[in-house]
Amino acid sequence: MKRENAGKVALGGIAAVLLLAFAAGLAAEEPATIKLNPPSLKRGLPLMEALAVRASVREYADRDLSLQDLSDLLWAADGLSRPAENKSTAPSAMNAHDVRIYVFMRTGAFLYDQQKHELAPVLAGDLRPQIVMARPPRPAGAPPPGAPAAPPAPAAAAPGLAPVDLILVSDGDRFRHGGPEQKAVWGALDAGIVSQNISLFCAATGLKTCPKASVNKEKIKELLKLTDAQVVFLDHPVGYAK
Amino acid sequence: MKRENAGKVALGGIAAVLLLAFAAGLAAEEPATIKLNPPSLKRGLPLMEALAVRASVREYADRDLSLQDLSDLLWAADGLSRPAENKSTAPSAMNAHDVRIYVFMRTGAFLYDQQKHELAPVLAGDLRPQIVMARPPRPAGAPPPGAPAAPPAPAAAAPGLAPVDLILVSDGDRFRHGGPEQKAVWGALDAGIVSQNISLFCAATGLKTCPKASVNKEKIKELLKLTDAQVVFLDHPVGYAK
Repeated sequence: MKRENAGKVALGGIAAVLLLAFAAGLAAEEPATIKLNPPSLKRGLPLMEALAVRASVREYADRDLSLQDLSDLLWAADGLSRPAENKSTAPSAMNAHDVRIYVFMRTGAFLYDQQKHELAPVLAGDLRPQIVMARPPRPAGAPPPGAPAAPPAPAAAAPGLAPVDLILVSDGDRFRHGGPEQKAVWGALDAGIVSQNISLFCAATGLKTCPKASVNKEKIKELLKLTDAQVVFLDHPVGYAK
Repeated sequence: MKRENAGKVALGGIAAVLLLAFAAGLAAEEPATIKLNPPSLKRGLPLMEALAVRASVREYADRDLSLQDLSDLLWAADGLSRPAENKSTAPSAMNAHDVRIYVFMRTGAFLYDQQKHELAPVLAGDLRPQIVMARPPRPAGAPPPGAPAAPPAPAAAAPGLAPVDLILVSDGDRFRHGGPEQKAVWGALDAGIVSQNISLFCAATGLKTCPKASVNKEKIKELLKLTDAQVVFLDHPVGYAK
């Protein structure tokens, strides 16, 4: 073999190794299913004390949740509490189990699988900046309740991101009857129930959260390929205290 | 004085006493304001255990709630937790405090006054039989989710009454903007949040409850003289275990 050819083979080998490494890198970016830990039932404050300290907090440390905190958070939100009866921590209208919890994190977007208590990957990459919306500022000189409605004020600059955004979606197809408006009401009631489970879990364990109706619903619908019957109701950013 | 006149005076006196007693009886039927006790923050299960045992129960003992249980139930539902900031145990969309809790009991209907932590009388008499509706039976051969909607089945016979029905109403005039459909969604989210506070308080303290969307909303609106902006969302019967 000539020196020239030997050089070509060596370059080809390096290229192949680089290609493999690149492919492996891509594969690593695809999020895998996250198996959640069983709920730790012995942690946290008594309910009455959790109610007393619950507060909406909108700033979070830039630190990912531990696997146990993430596991317990999702179980508290809507985990199976009586698997034999298919009952969860959140009642739902006509026991429809209509609320889906999507989990947006640094590594991707996941769907909480209540039956398996795991997070199924839906999308790769950090999509949090695309879905969050700033809290609209309190309008100056707002009219008192009962006065003619004023248009909502424009949104302010985006706030800091939480490590986790729980997006609460109600799947209207889970209800056996009712028109879209009725299903929107049932879905909102059920999302409110899950929301308070999240708020109280955070209050009981020192995590911070805040239920937010202002979230980029159109972008979420597009990203998650939701049907028209699947309605986004709330965003619950969750993180540690800043 | 003749014996005849003396008799007339005596009869007149008896009539006056009877009239006074009758008037006093009527006055006793008018319910008075019920001052609630401060919340007992040391009672009940930890939140995680309350989540684990929460269940919808539809049968109740025929026994009134104690004043402490009634007091703690209402504080947990939506009592002031941070009075200086006007914050309660339930967050609400735009901090609107739109949810009103009406309390139907044997003695009458009351409105929970969050600021004073007391029950203000609204109507006298036992109106519970007029407002409750039986749970619709599970339709036989119900279509799977996604199938064409079937009409709701007719209601069955009325169940036993709970000593307390908490009726959750959202007052849409409390929201500064939004049309009726948007306010219905915010109101349902906020009612769902209060509902889960009630369910978890009951789970933590051994009381029984169940969130019911099927309640006679027209009759409640008529009895309470609600405006069109005040929407009935849920009935929470609450009682001791049967």
